Amino acid sequence: MINVGIVGATGFAGEELIAILLRHPEVRLTNLSAIIDEPKPISGLFPKFKNKIDLICTKPDIKKIIIDSDLVFLALPHTASMAFVPHLLKAKKRVIDLSADYRLEDTGIYEKFYKTKQKDKLHLHQAVYGLPELYREKIKHASLIANPGCYPTCAILALAPIAAFNLADLGSIIIDAKSGVSGAGRKFAEDFLSSVFNEDFKAYKVNVHQHMPEINQELSKLSHKKISVTFVPHLLPLNKGILETIYIKKVPSTLPGRQAGKYRAPSLISLYKKFYKKEPFVRIRDEGDFPSLKDVNGTNFCDIAIKEDPKSIIIIAAIDNLLKGASGQAVQNMNIMYKFGEHTALI
Amino acid sequence: MINVGIVGATGFAGEELIAILLRHPEVRLTNLSAIIDEPKPISGLFPKFKNKIDLICTKPDIKKIIIDSDLVFLALPHTASMAFVPHLLKAKKRVIDLSADYRLEDTGIYEKFYKTKQKDKLHLHQAVYGLPELYREKIKHASLIANPGCYPTCAILALAPIAAFNLADLGSIIIDAKSGVSGAGRKFAEDFLSSVFNEDFKAYKVNVHQHMPEINQELSKLSHKKISVTFVPHLLPLNKGILETIYIKKVPSTLPGRQAGKYRAPSLISLYKKFYKKEPFVRIRDEGDFPSLKDVNGTNFCDIAIKEDPKSIIIIAAIDNLLKGASGQAVQNMNIMYKFGEHTALI
Amino acid sequence: MINVGIVGATGFAGEELIAILLRHPEVRLTNLSAIIDEPKPISGLFPKFKNKIDLICTKPDIKKIIIDSDLVFLALPHTASMAFVPHLLKAKKRVIDLSADYRLEDTGIYEKFYKTKQKDKLHLHQAVYGLPELYREKIKHASLIANPGCYPTCAILALAPIAAFNLADLGSIIIDAKSGVSGAGRKFAEDFLSSVFNEDFKAYKVNVHQHMPEINQELSKLSHKKISVTFVPHLLPLNKGILETIYIKKVPSTLPGRQAGKYRAPSLISLYKKFYKKEPFVRIRDEGDFPSLKDVNGTNFCDIAIKEDPKSIIIIAAIDNLLKGASGQAVQNMNIMYKFGEHTALI
Amino acid sequence: MINVGIVGATGFAGEELIAILLRHPEVRLTNLSAIIDEPKPISGLFPKFKNKIDLICTKPDIKKIIIDSDLVFLALPHTASMAFVPHLLKAKKRVIDLSADYRLEDTGIYEKFYKTKQKDKLHLHQAVYGLPELYREKIKHASLIANPGCYPTCAILALAPIAAFNLADLGSIIIDAKSGVSGAGRKFAEDFLSSVFNEDFKAYKVNVHQHMPEINQELSKLSHKKISVTFVPHLLPLNKGILETIYIKKVPSTLPGRQAGKYRAPSLISLYKKFYKKEPFVRIRDEGDFPSLKDVNGTNFCDIAIKEDPKSIIIIAAIDNLLKGASGQAVQNMNIMYKFGEHTALI
Repeated sequence: MINVGIVGATGFAGEELIAILLRHPEVRLTNLSAIIDEPKPISGLFPKFKNKIDLICTKPDIKKIIIDSDLVFLALPHTASMAFVPHLLKAKKRVIDLSADYRLEDTGIYEKFYKTKQKDKLHLHQAVYGLPELYREKIKHASLIANPGCYPTCAILALAPIAAFNLADLGSIIIDAKSGVSGAGRKFAEDFLSSVFNEDFKAYKVNVHQHMPEINQELSKLSHKKISVTFVPHLLPLNKGILETIYIKKVPSTLPGRQAGKYRAPSLISLYKKFYKKEPFVRIRDEGDFPSLKDVNGTNFCDIAIKEDPKSIIIIAAIDNLLKGASGQAVQNMNIMYKFGEHTALI
Repeated sequence: MINVGIVGATGFAGEELIAILLRHPEVRLTNLSAIIDEPKPISGLFPKFKNKIDLICTKPDIKKIIIDSDLVFLALPHTASMAFVPHLLKAKKRVIDLSADYRLEDTGIYEKFYKTKQKDKLHLHQAVYGLPELYREKIKHASLIANPGCYPTCAILALAPIAAFNLADLGSIIIDAKSGVSGAGRKFAEDFLSSVFNEDFKAYKVNVHQHMPEINQELSKLSHKKISVTFVPHLLPLNKGILETIYIKKVPSTLPGRQAGKYRAPSLISLYKKFYKKEPFVRIRDEGDFPSLKDVNGTNFCDIAIKEDPKSIIIIAAIDNLLKGASGQAVQNMNIMYKFGEHTALI
Repeated sequence: MINVGIVGATGFAGEELIAILLRHPEVRLTNLSAIIDEPKPISGLFPKFKNKIDLICTKPDIKKIIIDSDLVFLALPHTASMAFVPHLLKAKKRVIDLSADYRLEDTGIYEKFYKTKQKDKLHLHQAVYGLPELYREKIKHASLIANPGCYPTCAILALAPIAAFNLADLGSIIIDAKSGVSGAGRKFAEDFLSSVFNEDFKAYKVNVHQHMPEINQELSKLSHKKISVTFVPHLLPLNKGILETIYIKKVPSTLPGRQAGKYRAPSLISLYKKFYKKEPFVRIRDEGDFPSLKDVNGTNFCDIAIKEDPKSIIIIAAIDNLLKGASGQAVQNMNIMYKFGEHTALI
Repeated sequence: MINVGIVGATGFAGEELIAILLRHPEVRLTNLSAIIDEPKPISGLFPKFKNKIDLICTKPDIKKIIIDSDLVFLALPHTASMAFVPHLLKAKKRVIDLSADYRLEDTGIYEKFYKTKQKDKLHLHQAVYGLPELYREKIKHASLIANPGCYPTCAILALAPIAAFNLADLGSIIIDAKSGVSGAGRKFAEDFLSSVFNEDFKAYKVNVHQHMPEINQELSKLSHKKISVTFVPHLLPLNKGILETIYIKKVPSTLPGRQAGKYRAPSLISLYKKFYKKEPFVRIRDEGDFPSLKDVNGTNFCDIAIKEDPKSIIIIAAIDNLLKGASGQAVQNMNIMYKFGEHTALI
């Protein structure tokens, strides 16, 4: 049983973290805080939690958070996390940070895309990128997890086997991404909705979105090449879910049907199944079977389908942006860190 | 640990039952059946269940169901249940029937509203109406539960204290009900959606809906008067959730602030809180605080708000039609029948 | 050909006014203004108007508006209109005010419900309530139109024949109203959407909404009785449309089938058809045929269905809140004032 | 004034055609037919047309259609049109066919993608592909118009300048298309909705959709090269609108900033503006300004935005699939054929 605090309890990710942790048998929620005018019961802010939890949500008080918690989730906008992490780590607390602050190893890129200084370089190199499918061993012992972004989680899982074994023209990757409005946090959703309402759809931040360098970083590390994807996100008129349609050109010399590292597989689908064989939250679809958002929403799964054409590969991957794309993955990381069952509380 | 079968596993209620029971520690799903052309893995029919359950869904085979199951949920359209119940009860199986077949004590009314014969009068009088808030003791020992309809669950919980203590003009009850499209079963939702799509809203079955007599029956039993409500259902352009706005005229002689049975309360809100004090899934809102669908969707709660005006009472109540209005309540009944914790698996 | 200005061109009503007036053969749009930071082409603010109109939208400059316009539409929040009307009327301009400022004859009620002073009592009594079905003759010669609210337009049209001829228990009227989110103006829609998104539904301002006294005023004038309705509005997860379900108790002495003023009719439906016979934008449905929002959205129609039961009357009425409930009706009023065909530009 | 018949009046395209033609001053609707059980007033089938048109919709009677009509719109599923066209052309009627039957010049491809014979090769070569931006002169004199598909209209307009002047790697075109559910006809929308509802999104017919060869045909004709695009359509949880995000690789030798046919332009945006300068229904967005569905829905416009990166070009184009993608374009073609103003009735 561990004591857990959440800073940023009133955002989408914070709300979802509470919902998950309320059904976690090894967790006691002990401190909820957020930037609010005055303390309020969390069940007053989210009536759905009435009769389930009556903790008071307060402004963040770092001393109290340290006293109350073994582990702290930071569900904050970028830059805000850097104000908490040094104190928490100094006090020997473990931290799972859902912001972007500790995800990018290159602070120049962080500063270019987030328009702010990375002010905590000291702890940046301690941070473990919290994608269990790639970094499970490191996560076990981490004191600071940089929980991945939603678009990157989906894109990296969709492309990891191809990047790792250099199975296509890695310079040609195009990611056409579509997300429900909660993807960008409560504040952004409000702005977006003000102009959009129900019957709209549009692209935004065309090829300049701040999640692009995160995808590039991880694919480059996997492939040992400098990868630079084309990335166009769109906003769907629905609450949650991300679906990415990814296009890559083939290169003749590296098609499967041959050895790919320790795997040997007759098709990409078969290779992906082997690659993710032991992963509890990645599901590879059979030939011709493509995921819908409704298949993954409400779950921590990432569903991946692959269609090979003579010249190109089309990959379609889907996640719930608030679960596998944020709070579900954060709890998966916690489960790994504390040796709880990796599935625990993740329905 | 009990073995459970579901007949009608491919409808909305069946799908939701599977989702709940998959996280129930005392239940083993052993038989899934539905009217389908050929046997298929349930995870092929609902890809979201992939990696969670790989049971094959077959056509219903009553002998096999009896062998496989201790308890059977019937998630079938009305009239279909009557073909299964006699066999199951004869074989000493317990049954929770989500159809309307065993809900109405007056077979004449059943036949008028459902346009079909009640062919199993023998077991009709054994059936217990599965609303735990009214019939928990009987449910404990029941072999056949008639699980309530979605609109009636919401309406009866919203009106029970007033009906039980005759606190208003019970002849004046008006129920203006609004439901997501899943409320009427998958088949109906398809027909509805074909003409409606996203940006529509309408009333249907104005004052002739088949759930009206079910509401009348239970309110009449509570009040020992013959009650006949006005009931107008509407279809909302969303997937799930029921919200009912109920209007009742006051009668001077029976206002609260006086004794109401064993309760004494200064206001209706206060009376309702006492009435439902021990109920795990009923939440009474404070003055001026009204429920939204988002407060109850995904939960087994019924949220109830009351506004008293000098001449009338307005009650607003909300449930998730697939949970407290169907499968959640069915599992709540199962939990009571088998002395599992009443909350088990109901997040 | 008249020159027309719109103050408040960037709200929902202003946007819709522009769309309608762009196809009006007798209107030249000459001045668009709104509370904005700096002048912008209206087609920059609403890209859908590109290639159709390139007028610059500026801050309101009353002198320029007076020079540019014969008629001015005020599509402003309440209280803002009172700052423009005196200047415009003094300059002999005709004004159609879409705000609530000149709708309520009783300034005490205005001040109670709108929490602000009615500061222009001088012109208040000149204002004509712009519901053509009741006040067409006065509208012809009016210099100031108080364009009705959206909920009141629907409710008053739905109840006018019953109120005018006292055909039911006018003390028992209950209006259960449902509106798309645009009903309350762009600012409100933003706030609402921030918490609601797609899959929600809720009541708000339960029996205290500021449109209630407007309904009471007009029904009282029609019936020569003091009428006080019960009014509960709800917000639908869709962009536009209002549907109201109205409940009234019958009184034996005043049923139809007898003389009702100059009409004689065997049923209420038949009476309504006679009452609205010459109205271009009211459609009475036949027995058992109920309106959907999709039947009226995009049109200036009000569709009304009536169901009589032995003890009560249920009326279901629907309008597009931005057309018959706001800008469409405003243009209908303009057409009457200038003797244009009443249908002109109202598709 | 011409007499117009519509075969297939009850589908989405037929319904939209009626709505447009009702406001067309040069058109008299004289014959409405569809595959229905018995004759019904069109305003009974679509209550929104009440008080606007009371024509009876019957089963198609070719003799009566010929007597009643100068021009016939066929708003039918593919293969059905081929049963009407020969009779109508023989009787010297002009025909605008909204189906796919006469769009593909290569009958082998038609038969492969539509799984049926092209049985009217005689008239196939008379058909003019009804995209006014490319074929306006031929449309003027055509007796048979093959009205383009919705996806192809958007894709071809988005790519025509690049294809015509060979300005990029035409072998690398990827079209990631997203459509509202009405895009595929009423029958398909029903099937789709049965499994999808509000909160879903998915790809379908991944790189095998029947609109792909239509895009290939027209781009190949423009470029005098054999072009084969990658095309992945997706279904959006909204009623109408198509947005396509298109990716093309640059080739150094053919960048703009040089002569492109008769145009000379410093950027692609500038080139597109020149190319479509005289087109009433194509709008090219300025740098950094991308279209939303709400900008084009309800209009006959195609909005196109272009983003150039060092290595690739991203084009985002949007139309209302029922207007510029079907019925609006059909009326635009009629306006051209009969020398009516090209804008007439297209708001």
